[in-house]
Amino acid sequence: MKPSDRPTAEGILFTDQYQLTMAQLYFRTGLHERPAQFDHFFRSYPDYGLHQAGFCVNAGLEWLLDWMQEAHFREEDIAFLRGQTGATGERLFGDDFLQWLRTSGDFRAITMRAVPEGRVVHPNVPLTVVRGPLALAQILETPLLNHLNYQTLIATKAARIRESGQGQLLMEFGLRRAQGKGANAGARAALIGGADFSSNAGISHVLGYPPKGTHAHSMIQAFMVLGEGELGAFRAYADVYPDDCLLLVDTIDTLQSGVPNAITVFEELRRKGHKPVGIRLDSGDLAYLGIQAARMLNQAGFSDTRIVLSNQLDELVIWQIITQIQEEAPRYGIDADHLIGRLVYGVGTRLITSEGHSALDGVYKLVAVQDQGEWVPAFKVSEARSKVPNPADKGVWRLYDRRDKAVADLLSLADEDPREMDRVVLHHPTEHTKYQTLKREEISEIEPLLVDVLSEGRVLYDAPSIHKMRQRREADLERLYPGVRRIMNPHIYHVSLTERLWNLKEELIHTAREGRLS
Amino acid sequence: MKPSDRPTAEGILFTDQYQLTMAQLYFRTGLHERPAQFDHFFRSYPDYGLHQAGFCVNAGLEWLLDWMQEAHFREEDIAFLRGQTGATGERLFGDDFLQWLRTSGDFRAITMRAVPEGRVVHPNVPLTVVRGPLALAQILETPLLNHLNYQTLIATKAARIRESGQGQLLMEFGLRRAQGKGANAGARAALIGGADFSSNAGISHVLGYPPKGTHAHSMIQAFMVLGEGELGAFRAYADVYPDDCLLLVDTIDTLQSGVPNAITVFEELRRKGHKPVGIRLDSGDLAYLGIQAARMLNQAGFSDTRIVLSNQLDELVIWQIITQIQEEAPRYGIDADHLIGRLVYGVGTRLITSEGHSALDGVYKLVAVQDQGEWVPAFKVSEARSKVPNPADKGVWRLYDRRDKAVADLLSLADEDPREMDRVVLHHPTEHTKYQTLKREEISEIEPLLVDVLSEGRVLYDAPSIHKMRQRREADLERLYPGVRRIMNPHIYHVSLTERLWNLKEELIHTAREGRLS
Repeated sequence: MKPSDRPTAEGILFTDQYQLTMAQLYFRTGLHERPAQFDHFFRSYPDYGLHQAGFCVNAGLEWLLDWMQEAHFREEDIAFLRGQTGATGERLFGDDFLQWLRTSGDFRAITMRAVPEGRVVHPNVPLTVVRGPLALAQILETPLLNHLNYQTLIATKAARIRESGQGQLLMEFGLRRAQGKGANAGARAALIGGADFSSNAGISHVLGYPPKGTHAHSMIQAFMVLGEGELGAFRAYADVYPDDCLLLVDTIDTLQSGVPNAITVFEELRRKGHKPVGIRLDSGDLAYLGIQAARMLNQAGFSDTRIVLSNQLDELVIWQIITQIQEEAPRYGIDADHLIGRLVYGVGTRLITSEGHSALDGVYKLVAVQDQGEWVPAFKVSEARSKVPNPADKGVWRLYDRRDKAVADLLSLADEDPREMDRVVLHHPTEHTKYQTLKREEISEIEPLLVDVLSEGRVLYDAPSIHKMRQRREADLERLYPGVRRIMNPHIYHVSLTERLWNLKEELIHTAREGRLS
Repeated sequence: MKPSDRPTAEGILFTDQYQLTMAQLYFRTGLHERPAQFDHFFRSYPDYGLHQAGFCVNAGLEWLLDWMQEAHFREEDIAFLRGQTGATGERLFGDDFLQWLRTSGDFRAITMRAVPEGRVVHPNVPLTVVRGPLALAQILETPLLNHLNYQTLIATKAARIRESGQGQLLMEFGLRRAQGKGANAGARAALIGGADFSSNAGISHVLGYPPKGTHAHSMIQAFMVLGEGELGAFRAYADVYPDDCLLLVDTIDTLQSGVPNAITVFEELRRKGHKPVGIRLDSGDLAYLGIQAARMLNQAGFSDTRIVLSNQLDELVIWQIITQIQEEAPRYGIDADHLIGRLVYGVGTRLITSEGHSALDGVYKLVAVQDQGEWVPAFKVSEARSKVPNPADKGVWRLYDRRDKAVADLLSLADEDPREMDRVVLHHPTEHTKYQTLKREEISEIEPLLVDVLSEGRVLYDAPSIHKMRQRREADLERLYPGVRRIMNPHIYHVSLTERLWNLKEELIHTAREGRLS
């Protein structure tokens, strides 16, 4: 894309055309500035095929807010809309509507509450609650979902990979396999969700993390062409980076050539008083090669060097590698825990694309419209009961049991505060007969999840640092039961409705079925 | 991201850290300006699990070139590198290297040949051939792959969806489910590969295509809240867009409410002299509902209105819908072909993410380095024979048989021209015993695939319009055998080596195995 086209492609027109045609319709019918509320939530956890998520990690909010601060209808955008024609060749958008966009077409009138980034979140729970003029809240739908769906998807995948890697150092390597510039959003989300570092230099700089990486096969090849071979390449690398020497050992043959050459160079470094960092394995049976490489490194007295693994890793592959090391290492006289403790994972494609489930199904649904000063719940029936959104303005609460573990997220009507209830009834969101009553003394804490983020365009969200978001994630994960955290067939966390919200929903379904609203 | 951070995150630092550490190593060893050649190619067609691609559609080049024209090391980028430290706290990058980046750190010295966008392409065929100073060609690796991998992936998916939709109108709807700003690259690639239009307003504007879209469920809901119901919403829409009236009919109940209300409004439009466009179905059994909706529309005299289908479509779902319509429509007195001919497909998530195979495995391999004025082939052995790249500078040719169908892509040494050969020997790239000899008279055309794109930074590529790329794609698809085009278990297209290239590769493998290069 030409640089001059960026403001058009990434500004307020970074939305679906139908948001604009609907906005004009609201304008024509006098509804464009009618206060309306939309809830953003996702419907189901990522299901990667062989394995499924039992939680997600919320991400993307700060960048959405940054985008909203900037986005507005510039003259060029207006000119584009003015040039659009319909089937008969007549203009699609009228001058009066365009004039309104020119003066009011931005997000200064939007008020927003949201779950902060880094928090563990669950399906059907409003993560972002948008209130504002109907036409503008409508235009916001697509960019909001674009920003939040993807980052939450990747933060979730990163958290899973971190879990399966038992907290070992995790690097995000996906820039070359991402969707264009989306790579930057993905790297940020990976850092929030569980990656320690990214190889992506630019975004690491922006976020204040040192980017990580050493060298590729091509460096070895170049030295081979010039007759200096792998050993020459390793020596050159050690010369330039004597205290940051991490060598990729699989260009020729990992155990016959790469590891022995690395050890030669490490010994030279040691003699000069430097401490080599380690090796990287990027092909073959990583568990087996890891064990053999560890054996050779240990024998040479380099038992504290790192062994970085890369090549199509994800949470299942890492789990398999660890399991295989646990079984196989002792046979070669290697302490499995020690080896596992020196591993570092470099994860590219399968993290940045959330392999197996490449899009979160986040949606943005109208839940209330103001009419004569009153908020009226909006509603949508659907063939699938599970797709009927929860109507009205709501409270969102997390309940912890006496062991301080999260047991349910509870959606209430806005004027309900479960902290003031003696007993809390948790209704299953769709099944009438399923509910559970918790006495107040069974609950150690009831925590409201939404915080104020925007008040009529003014940012109230004190965006936490990536470091704080990670702490938030760790703390939330600590408070989940292990069954919910496990990477295959997790226990399904409860998301429930209060009795009054359940009743309102039932009533609206009933009314809709009776056709009184249609 | 703050707007002020964009030049850092999306400029020349939009690369992997190891490219920068390697670049400094080349600088230190005096190799940084050594002419080198890298080939970009992908290794295998996307495999979506239940179905597989038999061809890809090349895309992304123009945007890569746009990026390269702009990218250079700004003072801010240099400052960032200057601030990076290694394990001991010492600076990672030296001032002399940074000074070189300041004066030479851009792509003005790069020469490039490439396969034009829109062309049908196959694995292991060099699609982009980069020559230039080793350090800069190295830094280019990651952004080149980022730009080309994703767009080729999506152009390919779009071409498949278009094939399965039998050429009916196809809309790209994926903005909300893409990887952040990657959505724009995805929409562009979809337009090249097979989509007629996109819902993404901004990028459509940039590319000169009208964005498409009408309204969402939320518009109906808003009218329902205000007591005007679905019919009121439809009437309002028809009022504002009388000649572009396409109504979403599944908010309440498709056949009981949506279609009857749409027909009422269409009749009102007809009386006023307008021609309604059609309806959109977004849930349920789309084949069944399509048939029933067609029946109702036909009975009301609207047999030429469009029926837009959306909701988790991809090439298999569309194939299934068409098959079901062919079987089921006659039972309801509906002409299946007529119905299929009025369908329009709106494809979101599964197109923009290439569901089932979310990253193309494109790579960028060093194939030659200049030494004392001579180009020396670079090489990399690998455990998997299929992963051994084809060395040296090469010619890339497409052979057509007497029926004017493409039968093979042929890689030759740079000084070979198969057009001058009496007989062409096609060697299987990895299996010694597999080869085939074509006599010149069996070949109707031998076409060179690479064109000059950049000459020492100067753009030679006359970037074709999207329209031209589509024509190019159509023409290439026409010249494929149907077995290669089919969406499941396609026939595998031949990618072959000339005898001389095969021999060179064998020789290099042998030499490497002998350890003479290591």
